Amino acid sequence: MTNKLIEQLSVVTDSKIALIVIDGLSGIPDSKGKTELETANIPNLDALTANSICGVTDPISPGITPGSGPAHLSLFGYNPLEYKIGRGLLEALGIDFPLEAGDLAVRGNLATMDKDGKIADRRAGRISTEENVKICKLLEGIEIDGVRVFVKPVKDHRVVIVFRGKGLDDALSETDPQREGLAPLPVKPLGPLAAETAGIVTRFIEEVKKRLSNSFPANMILLRGFARSQQLPSFHERYKLRAAAIASYPMYRGLARLAGMEILPVGGSLSDEFDCLKQNLNKYDFFYLHVKYTDSAGEDGNFEKKVAVLEEVDSYIPGLLELNPDVLIVTGDHSTPAILKGHSWHPVPIILYGRYTGSDDVAMFSEKECAKGGIGRIPAMQVMPLAMANALKLTKYGA
Amino acid sequence: MTNKLIEQLSVVTDSKIALIVIDGLSGIPDSKGKTELETANIPNLDALTANSICGVTDPISPGITPGSGPAHLSLFGYNPLEYKIGRGLLEALGIDFPLEAGDLAVRGNLATMDKDGKIADRRAGRISTEENVKICKLLEGIEIDGVRVFVKPVKDHRVVIVFRGKGLDDALSETDPQREGLAPLPVKPLGPLAAETAGIVTRFIEEVKKRLSNSFPANMILLRGFARSQQLPSFHERYKLRAAAIASYPMYRGLARLAGMEILPVGGSLSDEFDCLKQNLNKYDFFYLHVKYTDSAGEDGNFEKKVAVLEEVDSYIPGLLELNPDVLIVTGDHSTPAILKGHSWHPVPIILYGRYTGSDDVAMFSEKECAKGGIGRIPAMQVMPLAMANALKLTKYGA
Repeated sequence: MTNKLIEQLSVVTDSKIALIVIDGLSGIPDSKGKTELETANIPNLDALTANSICGVTDPISPGITPGSGPAHLSLFGYNPLEYKIGRGLLEALGIDFPLEAGDLAVRGNLATMDKDGKIADRRAGRISTEENVKICKLLEGIEIDGVRVFVKPVKDHRVVIVFRGKGLDDALSETDPQREGLAPLPVKPLGPLAAETAGIVTRFIEEVKKRLSNSFPANMILLRGFARSQQLPSFHERYKLRAAAIASYPMYRGLARLAGMEILPVGGSLSDEFDCLKQNLNKYDFFYLHVKYTDSAGEDGNFEKKVAVLEEVDSYIPGLLELNPDVLIVTGDHSTPAILKGHSWHPVPIILYGRYTGSDDVAMFSEKECAKGGIGRIPAMQVMPLAMANALKLTKYGA
Repeated sequence: MTNKLIEQLSVVTDSKIALIVIDGLSGIPDSKGKTELETANIPNLDALTANSICGVTDPISPGITPGSGPAHLSLFGYNPLEYKIGRGLLEALGIDFPLEAGDLAVRGNLATMDKDGKIADRRAGRISTEENVKICKLLEGIEIDGVRVFVKPVKDHRVVIVFRGKGLDDALSETDPQREGLAPLPVKPLGPLAAETAGIVTRFIEEVKKRLSNSFPANMILLRGFARSQQLPSFHERYKLRAAAIASYPMYRGLARLAGMEILPVGGSLSDEFDCLKQNLNKYDFFYLHVKYTDSAGEDGNFEKKVAVLEEVDSYIPGLLELNPDVLIVTGDHSTPAILKGHSWHPVPIILYGRYTGSDDVAMFSEKECAKGGIGRIPAMQVMPLAMANALKLTKYGA
């Protein structure tokens, strides 16, 4: 409902919005009683906080720990309970595969079958990525009843398979029995619209067996996590924005691509990313810039590393402010507390900087301080409407 | 959903609720770093804040700037995305026209057509309101297929037309081509249910042409903003309240009338309005009192004037408290920051005063301070349930 509203109210203006997403931003206190943000020396972010209005967001709702897909969709203003990005899709996005609406993606393991048709090794001896690439070449050009199949290497024994055609459905059972010594499971339709797709996938597996019959130990593929790609209303449709994504990690580029953002080529460092924003400033009116390593450090339980990445991000804030964005948002997609070694449900601090934000008394960028801010606690889905409003890109609702 | 709940739980008691709506209440800091509320000397409102619980509300949701219609509906507890008040209706409400559910209202311009049927002047030489009144008299008593038509003067060349009958639909195209030298556009149905209404409006226009053929320069009406009146569940049905509205501006009287409030006759000053509340205290158990001039000053970009009106409102607070309302709410319908010269999306401070509110530490009535209050940030639609609860007019949900 609100989404349609935004589409109706959004207008094109010259103002520019920058959304800086520090992945896994927030944390909880370690044994010394401080979070990563509270420990980090981040004078520029603190100063920005003092000149902004701030608050905290819930990626989904209180208590819910989101994956990267739903957390990002929410920040981009899409209801993550309505638009779903299943595992297979995330895997495809993660290798920069150019997904189209309606594509059916699934994760695959290269595996070893013995001569009795039982699984001898679910990971084909963890073959190398180089071997994986060769195997995938053997599987090029498969087409079944007008459905094209792309088999792409990910890493080690992992592949992703994308089916492209009309009427594909992802209500399918998985073929990986999760144990060795068993036969692969047949693909079964789990919903009324999936029977035809199940048949196509079954024939694909037969073709794989045939083509890989001489490729021991990788003579089979086990499938998990079927997911069909949904058409998201694009940033251009919904917000009338010329939007660009700056992300060194493929998955985030993929999520931005699903939202219709243009993907800017960029190197792997934070410096590359912020430079890229500067170079492209005049060509777009919305920038999504993704910082990955806070999340990786959190996932590794590496508190100090996460602190260090936060401090590195801090060093780019003055340069960012020199670009005079009309609206600057610094936030995260979700929390990744180092002591939990994974994503968590904790609300995420947000700074909203601009000419018309109003103000509050918060002067430190931390979980605790931002929770006292003028924005209060809002669903992450409301961040884009707030950004648009503050950039004067939304007209009035009703007379 | 919640609405049905309130209807189910509400009970009649002797307690009294006063809802003071300061139109366009909140603002953002000007060059001196303070908002209108922060600049105003409002000791009585500050003292009331100290003795109340406070917070901020979103008229629609974060980032959305509401018109007066949806902002008021929301405060009255109606979902503004469900109940819509289109342009034509607002115009009818603005002249105190007693709208009924199902009425179709549209704004009209008296215009001049040349002998070739082209529009020579879209405003009929901006004729005077006196002339307008005479023209409208010529158009009295039109009835088409059982649909009665009321043509009423607004101001200068502006009129409002209300069609009253069964099955009217507002999915109609406008007849004003927005340029001179063109013929008026035909009314076309824009939806499957509007064909019959389009026919009726077309015949109305024919009748207008005939009756005004000797009324040069006002020999035509151009139509814009068709809107059908929806039945709102009344305050009596939903809240079991005997509700009265005190508003010197017709549009707000009209909105209150749509909600089934009784409209009290009142003069144009704030003093008149607060007197009116006092005089009628024993006759009703809910009062909506509307303060217009904060919004007008904000719209004019007149920061000082808005400050002055706030200070004037402040002077009536002691008298209001002497009446011992069980629940007193002071809030706004939306923000109108003087520096934006228009409505805005910023959340609106609210004070909730009563015996059972609980307390917080806020002691100043401002955007920033109220954002720290015990109510937090809530949708404006939840204000009426809070008011009802604090007046002990809502029973328990479930056993």
